[in-house]
Amino acid sequence: MPSLYEPVGTLTYVASWFARRRPLAELPRLRQRGEHRAVARVDLHDLTPDPPSYLGQAAHLQLVSFQSLSAVIQATPSLADKRTLTAPAADALGAYQAFVEEIGRRFGDPVEVMTPFSRGAEHLYRLNEGGDWRETLLGVLVTSGLLVDFFVRVSGGLPGELASHAEQILARSAEEEPLIAVLRDEIERDPRVASRLALWGRRLVGDTLLIARSVLRGYERLEADEVREIEPIFTELIAAHTRRMDALGLTA
Amino acid sequence: MPSLYEPVGTLTYVASWFARRRPLAELPRLRQRGEHRAVARVDLHDLTPDPPSYLGQAAHLQLVSFQSLSAVIQATPSLADKRTLTAPAADALGAYQAFVEEIGRRFGDPVEVMTPFSRGAEHLYRLNEGGDWRETLLGVLVTSGLLVDFFVRVSGGLPGELASHAEQILARSAEEEPLIAVLRDEIERDPRVASRLALWGRRLVGDTLLIARSVLRGYERLEADEVREIEPIFTELIAAHTRRMDALGLTA
Repeated sequence: MPSLYEPVGTLTYVASWFARRRPLAELPRLRQRGEHRAVARVDLHDLTPDPPSYLGQAAHLQLVSFQSLSAVIQATPSLADKRTLTAPAADALGAYQAFVEEIGRRFGDPVEVMTPFSRGAEHLYRLNEGGDWRETLLGVLVTSGLLVDFFVRVSGGLPGELASHAEQILARSAEEEPLIAVLRDEIERDPRVASRLALWGRRLVGDTLLIARSVLRGYERLEADEVREIEPIFTELIAAHTRRMDALGLTA
Repeated sequence: MPSLYEPVGTLTYVASWFARRRPLAELPRLRQRGEHRAVARVDLHDLTPDPPSYLGQAAHLQLVSFQSLSAVIQATPSLADKRTLTAPAADALGAYQAFVEEIGRRFGDPVEVMTPFSRGAEHLYRLNEGGDWRETLLGVLVTSGLLVDFFVRVSGGLPGELASHAEQILARSAEEEPLIAVLRDEIERDPRVASRLALWGRRLVGDTLLIARSVLRGYERLEADEVREIEPIFTELIAAHTRRMDALGLTA
């Protein structure tokens, strides 16, 4: 039974769709990008999961963001914070609904398509869950921030117009400013919060990168040089993470 | 300091705006309706809270519905249930945002307008909170169902176009079908759930009626015959509650 993000040991995860293994001849190979980019010369497109798996996991990602943000909205006593955070919560909910609609239109029952990834989603939700609402909010910022970036990068490997659809839906859900604003206020109010959150951010990013890797189709079977070729993309994701932490005045 | 729904003893509440008491000469009087309705010949318009209080409490009501529904979405393990309940959660969130916008446009800082009613909102959230997610979902259905009906009835006393605006916003948030569908499935799956929920519903309705009464401007100072005159409206609210419980196959 496939189940994304499933822990194997403490820190490694297997990609869910391994359960429907393809013959070796179809092993995806990395493609060199025609255009040269500053950092990454390869892309992840050949490792993009099949469309239902992509959409099912993207829908889960948005549902988890929504659920974690809702928990923060409930937990913060500040009406101003609640108000600031309802916009990104509504965006995550809208993105979830858009993915569910896309699944329904293309592949039938969204519940069936999403169910194999429920355990992984539960794992992601637990990962976000911090010792208080500030940590949970940083959890959403770090994990959803990184994973949305990642799903955008991977979307290019989807067939036809689905690629741009997915990217548009993700773009709509990616507003980080409200989360950063609330966290900055908390950090300014109490300097001890900063060191606690910096620590928490470092704990989150490693696990989130493992989740991202587990989404890739066939990652476990890549050759060493191919793994090296994708490294720049993870370096990019980490750089974006560092910028997010910088925006909070925290060391990544 | 005004604070709606504040408990006085165990089962009585004072309306928040009592803190800004008006001179006795301005005591609101009940108006007989020109048109004759089947049940109620009087309306609550003269007891409608002043516009900022109305909007502040209506915004809180929607925020609580959103928060309680989010807690249910998080707690239910069923992806189908989660999916069904995201629509009403999004509606409650949208209604909250619309009320906040209305407050901002008319009366300045929404946080300031809403803050006096935060304790009352917390009380309502705790009231919804049941022993499991099914009870919490019934909590939202019963309390939000009754209070939205109530705020619609009271909206007629708002000045100018605000009355119809408020009613439109409330109408958008009032879809009960998804909540009923999820609860019916649960009741069908396990008959013991029915008796537990019936009991829970009866517990909720009394407290919710007290909350509704506490919203009315000047209720505490009405004459006995005036109280009798408003009774039909509460009878209507209870009848609507009974219809909701009937839809679940439960005795109200």
